[in-house]
Amino acid sequence: MCRNEPESVEDAKKMHHITLSERLGLEDLLSLQVWKASLAELLGTAVLVFMIDTIVISSFESKTTTPNLVMSILIAITVAILLLATCPVSGGHINPVITFSAALVGLISLSRAAVYIFAQCVGGALGALALEAVVSSTIAQNFSLGACTLTIIAPGPQGPVVVGLETGQALWLEIFCTFVFLFASIWMAFDHRQAKALGLVLVLSIVGTVVGLLVFISTTVTATKGYSGAGMNPARCLGPAIIRGGHVWTGHWVFWVGPIIACMAFYLYTKIIPHQHFCGAEYKHDFFNILKALVSSDARK
Amino acid sequence: MCRNEPESVEDAKKMHHITLSERLGLEDLLSLQVWKASLAELLGTAVLVFMIDTIVISSFESKTTTPNLVMSILIAITVAILLLATCPVSGGHINPVITFSAALVGLISLSRAAVYIFAQCVGGALGALALEAVVSSTIAQNFSLGACTLTIIAPGPQGPVVVGLETGQALWLEIFCTFVFLFASIWMAFDHRQAKALGLVLVLSIVGTVVGLLVFISTTVTATKGYSGAGMNPARCLGPAIIRGGHVWTGHWVFWVGPIIACMAFYLYTKIIPHQHFCGAEYKHDFFNILKALVSSDARK
Amino acid sequence: MCRNEPESVEDAKKMHHITLSERLGLEDLLSLQVWKASLAELLGTAVLVFMIDTIVISSFESKTTTPNLVMSILIAITVAILLLATCPVSGGHINPVITFSAALVGLISLSRAAVYIFAQCVGGALGALALEAVVSSTIAQNFSLGACTLTIIAPGPQGPVVVGLETGQALWLEIFCTFVFLFASIWMAFDHRQAKALGLVLVLSIVGTVVGLLVFISTTVTATKGYSGAGMNPARCLGPAIIRGGHVWTGHWVFWVGPIIACMAFYLYTKIIPHQHFCGAEYKHDFFNILKALVSSDARK
Amino acid sequence: MCRNEPESVEDAKKMHHITLSERLGLEDLLSLQVWKASLAELLGTAVLVFMIDTIVISSFESKTTTPNLVMSILIAITVAILLLATCPVSGGHINPVITFSAALVGLISLSRAAVYIFAQCVGGALGALALEAVVSSTIAQNFSLGACTLTIIAPGPQGPVVVGLETGQALWLEIFCTFVFLFASIWMAFDHRQAKALGLVLVLSIVGTVVGLLVFISTTVTATKGYSGAGMNPARCLGPAIIRGGHVWTGHWVFWVGPIIACMAFYLYTKIIPHQHFCGAEYKHDFFNILKALVSSDARK
Repeated sequence: MCRNEPESVEDAKKMHHITLSERLGLEDLLSLQVWKASLAELLGTAVLVFMIDTIVISSFESKTTTPNLVMSILIAITVAILLLATCPVSGGHINPVITFSAALVGLISLSRAAVYIFAQCVGGALGALALEAVVSSTIAQNFSLGACTLTIIAPGPQGPVVVGLETGQALWLEIFCTFVFLFASIWMAFDHRQAKALGLVLVLSIVGTVVGLLVFISTTVTATKGYSGAGMNPARCLGPAIIRGGHVWTGHWVFWVGPIIACMAFYLYTKIIPHQHFCGAEYKHDFFNILKALVSSDARK
Repeated sequence: MCRNEPESVEDAKKMHHITLSERLGLEDLLSLQVWKASLAELLGTAVLVFMIDTIVISSFESKTTTPNLVMSILIAITVAILLLATCPVSGGHINPVITFSAALVGLISLSRAAVYIFAQCVGGALGALALEAVVSSTIAQNFSLGACTLTIIAPGPQGPVVVGLETGQALWLEIFCTFVFLFASIWMAFDHRQAKALGLVLVLSIVGTVVGLLVFISTTVTATKGYSGAGMNPARCLGPAIIRGGHVWTGHWVFWVGPIIACMAFYLYTKIIPHQHFCGAEYKHDFFNILKALVSSDARK
Repeated sequence: MCRNEPESVEDAKKMHHITLSERLGLEDLLSLQVWKASLAELLGTAVLVFMIDTIVISSFESKTTTPNLVMSILIAITVAILLLATCPVSGGHINPVITFSAALVGLISLSRAAVYIFAQCVGGALGALALEAVVSSTIAQNFSLGACTLTIIAPGPQGPVVVGLETGQALWLEIFCTFVFLFASIWMAFDHRQAKALGLVLVLSIVGTVVGLLVFISTTVTATKGYSGAGMNPARCLGPAIIRGGHVWTGHWVFWVGPIIACMAFYLYTKIIPHQHFCGAEYKHDFFNILKALVSSDARK
Repeated sequence: MCRNEPESVEDAKKMHHITLSERLGLEDLLSLQVWKASLAELLGTAVLVFMIDTIVISSFESKTTTPNLVMSILIAITVAILLLATCPVSGGHINPVITFSAALVGLISLSRAAVYIFAQCVGGALGALALEAVVSSTIAQNFSLGACTLTIIAPGPQGPVVVGLETGQALWLEIFCTFVFLFASIWMAFDHRQAKALGLVLVLSIVGTVVGLLVFISTTVTATKGYSGAGMNPARCLGPAIIRGGHVWTGHWVFWVGPIIACMAFYLYTKIIPHQHFCGAEYKHDFFNILKALVSSDARK
């Protein structure tokens, strides 16, 4: 059985004495351990961005009849292996979505999450830079470095035209795909019982498979040239945007706002289902408890 | 050894004092736990419908030479992963066929089954709605949102004609495929001994694989344009039917009646084979015992 | 260590008092348990025939570039899953070859084997009937319901001609493939030590894989239109033959005689290798001991 | 900890009294147990040759776009399964390379190795004979029964020309591939500690995978028509050579000399690395100790 709630009144009282700073885990911001661990996140995200972008380019360059499928399978394998590689050091996030939802359910403190997400964004930029240095300039131009784009500017008969997906539709797809990603795979990694029962390799393979499936679906279903598919990883989208700049920034906020909404919805889901069915949350760092603490400290003033 | 039957006369006597309401598990209808758990069913079925429908569309859009095969493999993976994700919360049904047969053999009460099936149908509709919002309208039109159809209206040389499978053949295929699905995979999940011996992941992978195989077979073997293959999941068929409406409703009853008959046949099979070979049924909720209770209470009047 | 032989003279004496009827297991013929268990064999074989035949048809209909390979992989998966499904009820044979060789080495009595093989043949016919009801008539015609055929009658420039494999070659292939099937996979399932060490799932997966490999090899290597590949399962061949009739019966005996010879050869192999290396046989039902008992009872007359 | 060396002076003395005949295990030559066990080697090698040769033929006949890849995967599976099937009877060699290197490190006596290699060669010939009886004559001609060839005689514009790999290059590839095979996979099976930690199935799967990888690499990397890839199994090469004869014998010595040199190199490697890292060798049958015994008995004369 998993125990997330204080069992007695005394426990509950003790819980009230946790300061807000403890709840936010502010000491993590100055912890060398956390920053060292975030190096794995930085390198992991850099490698992830480099590999995913090269996979995107390779799949479409190699003239297979099914570039989407090949791309999705390779991305699935890559994600699973990189999670496995970074898992013992930093916990294996390499994705702000995982880090943020882990902070919401209380697995890590918000401060550690902030450090990780910062490291992931730097890593994303470094990965895109490494790719820029290697790839031929024509390909870099054609594929925008494999960036997350809503639209591209394509040459049309009356001058260049903007081709792509509507922002609303893209945002909705981003929310839905990220939620499916959290609901169908990340939740197994967060729940101690399940993660133990299934084993690390299997859980991370499932995470990778779900990412691959969603990439496949989101690119094919819209059937819209210019839309690069659901991002589900803001750091992976930020990297190429910083390096390429220009039109890649158009609608870039979608790849941040969508995942944030999905994380909130996922957090709500874990709160609604019966307590004994989700054994991942720790009381101390839980987002709802932080909110309660904030409100009650306001009330006491 | 598994013990499903009352061992002594006393046990048997005590069994007779179980009221019909207890047998039907009416208290489950008002249990918050059950309704909360059904949220996982609702979300799970929504995601299932969204993903299966997008996979159906993606496979045929991505111009593989073997769309049926790709589609079947992806569906197999999706089903296995979603069952794994919802398993610890609600038991992992996301399919009225599994819920209904679980109620027949007595794993869950009929009341809980009713709640779950309701949640699955709502989830199916939500999933289809989420797809409708995302998919391009041409594709939505061409594929009827990946709905379960017996026939489609195709443009012919003398105006539109109805193309598809005969209702009788479709019903028979639906019964047979659902029975194979129950006989070859679900039975492993229901039998405590086997489920434990094989492990959850393997059992659910087998369930997914069997679904994929049957989808592949039922779509190819009929070789009939307009027939979408065996449904084997009424909730997944109901969702797109509600959202798209129109001709999708034609013959929709087949996707409900077929599975119900298959569930009955499967229940019969578990009753005929020697007791020690099926360790899944609980005495209390077993359908046959409910019938006996009904008859005996009639007799006592 | 496994003990198959009577250890002392006394044991050996006691063994002599086993009546022939006990050795043949005649009481199994009237046992309800055996007949009930044979229901799993019947349904299992029906599903097997339905699925293998549909897989054969689907693979060639779906216009893959490699129908043989796809077919073999799907057959491998199907066989493994169905063996797993019927294993706890009847022991998981769904193939007269496995049943007959199990009877020869003494795992089951000859009487039980007879009941099982009867059930498998009925199941094979039912499976073919279920397919006949579902499949479109053109396909049924083209593929002879996926039956085991040596030859087909193909339209030629001077009227229809018989195309196919020579009977001798087919018989030899049948013997060899069935022997490989027994030697490379079934023997692991029969040997208690190995079956335990490897685990049920792995053993049955190996059985399925070997079947798939042999189907792939036997269909490609002959490169003869009209020959359907090695049967290695008489019940699966009998079913479509009963339902379709006609030319499918031509050379049908090959699919029975070949496996029988292979079973005999396999039994000889298990007798020749050192005793401590095969822990599957039970003394009582062993075929050689039955023969000895027959001869000695003749001698005593 | 593993103990291969005599621990005290007394042990060392006793070791000196092991006669040369004991070291060579001459009694194994007359042991019925050894000859019975070698039946598994004979049958195993026969099945291996039949299946590998048919896989080679099938892969290239079935018109996949990637025959090398399909062939390598199927060979990997076949090797792993056949090793698993013969392992409990004879130790699971079905390859003179494994038998010879096992004798060198002292796992089995040289006499037993001689019996096994003889059985493997007979088995190889029988397997090729079984294939010859089954395969269509055109295919047998085109593929030389899937034999190990350096060159083939292809029709050229000015009469038939010899196409293939240079002998020196083939020998080097043979030595290198066989050494990698021993170094990367067989060594896990020989080392008691590793074999136990990983489990039999995993070790044999790794052996199969490495064989498949090397076949893939050696066929693709040379990209030379006529060269059949590294043999890494002289018995498998000898079989088709005996049955087909003719040009298949050209350069056949390469498939024996290469593996022998590789086995020697592997034996040297196991002698050079620190003792505690290789726990497979037994003192008595170790090749170096036999040589020492031979020299010292010469000296005593």
